[in-house]
Amino acid sequence: MTRFRLIVEYDGSPFIGWQRQPHGASVQQTIEEAVEAITGERAVVHAAGRTDTGVHALAMAAHVDIAKTITAFRLSEGLNALLRPLPVAILAADAVADDWHARFSCIGRRYVYRIVNRRAPVTLDAGRAWQVVVPLDAQAMDEAAQRLVGLHDFTTFRSAHCQSASPVKTLDRLDVRRHGERIEIEAAARSFLHHQVRSMVGCLYLVGRGKWTAGDLEAALEARDRAALGLNAPPDGLYFAAASYPDEGSPRPNSD
Amino acid sequence: MTRFRLIVEYDGSPFIGWQRQPHGASVQQTIEEAVEAITGERAVVHAAGRTDTGVHALAMAAHVDIAKTITAFRLSEGLNALLRPLPVAILAADAVADDWHARFSCIGRRYVYRIVNRRAPVTLDAGRAWQVVVPLDAQAMDEAAQRLVGLHDFTTFRSAHCQSASPVKTLDRLDVRRHGERIEIEAAARSFLHHQVRSMVGCLYLVGRGKWTAGDLEAALEARDRAALGLNAPPDGLYFAAASYPDEGSPRPNSD
Repeated sequence: MTRFRLIVEYDGSPFIGWQRQPHGASVQQTIEEAVEAITGERAVVHAAGRTDTGVHALAMAAHVDIAKTITAFRLSEGLNALLRPLPVAILAADAVADDWHARFSCIGRRYVYRIVNRRAPVTLDAGRAWQVVVPLDAQAMDEAAQRLVGLHDFTTFRSAHCQSASPVKTLDRLDVRRHGERIEIEAAARSFLHHQVRSMVGCLYLVGRGKWTAGDLEAALEARDRAALGLNAPPDGLYFAAASYPDEGSPRPNSD
Repeated sequence: MTRFRLIVEYDGSPFIGWQRQPHGASVQQTIEEAVEAITGERAVVHAAGRTDTGVHALAMAAHVDIAKTITAFRLSEGLNALLRPLPVAILAADAVADDWHARFSCIGRRYVYRIVNRRAPVTLDAGRAWQVVVPLDAQAMDEAAQRLVGLHDFTTFRSAHCQSASPVKTLDRLDVRRHGERIEIEAAARSFLHHQVRSMVGCLYLVGRGKWTAGDLEAALEARDRAALGLNAPPDGLYFAAASYPDEGSPRPNSD
């Protein structure tokens, strides 16, 4: 048995998310079926994060155990050949130690959220960004975002379906930057609650359009109550950008 | 009658190109029909450039004459509402002088060509970039590109269907820059021949993979013979980026 680490890029639009579910095509099932087609083995692919319907990945880390003798190169070439009609690509594959676990060994996760802030509809970015028509003050958003950084109870920003043992997490970074009509929000933490990034972005949007102050955002955090949430941002703009591990730092950061 | 300048963004994938043709949906026809739906007038929309099947635009300049009284804001809002299911958006609309012509007044055109240089298939960039699997030397491409800058007979880089009166053009700029796995080529000139950018990019690709030297590229240019062309790059990576006019410089450069 060899454990392989996979770095996966995908367009989340046609999937019900990363995780295998009975009612639709998931990224996980798609890759597992490709592994089985190559090896004849039923395989489980574990990922660093479980993205929702419509959420993308620039470099999702995952692993799979394979009994058949195969090189990492052959595996990634074979997977990409089978996946090709679908927007899922194996960017890298490596044999790793048997105790390396894409989810449990991961010590850092980074997400990027993309907003196109303009009145005209998006064309080339359709499904790949959140179009916000009203002008947003990105600097106010960035300043308010700093109130969320650090160790907090993030219950307000947690989905009812969240399976995390505790709502207490340390948010390492939450930066908001404007580049012309584009606003990019970067979030980094050891781990996130379900819907946490989209919930934080939704509240920052309220700050950006002047409906909330930084103090309102802080009050929502301190309420520790889902009912205090301003807005959950749509999935289209969210990208799982990178996972990092103790032995190597970030494997394959997004080169975009 | 009021002449309106339109700045148009589009994803070229579902279109047979800018120009109206009997055998498929064009961007021009799509906008003309939307104008007619709003005004009741048959309209002709003229553009600064005529992009081919699958070629995109970040900011195509165009104009249309409308007899009905309508503000530029109402016009762009109405067009975007009608165009919305299709990946065509009016980024800006302004009333301009009656002698302003999107094509004939234009004194500068800028194209961007995007290459993703990696082995793994593209997912999020499918249809929006040329995937090149073999490693390209972007610096060698950039150095060779400078041999094409200036006043030349570009017959080698001209499609058989080109309608330009002369193959002699002045290429103002041809820059090749690598950003991680992405290579971006920028071309600027007063005007281009049909297929000129894709033909130049195809030859630079041969330089990038070491099949051609800068001298080979120069020899191809000097041959003034389409048969000397190395390769025509696919349309997916090409974007009409901006048109400029004497009165105002570049209207709405791409903010990407």
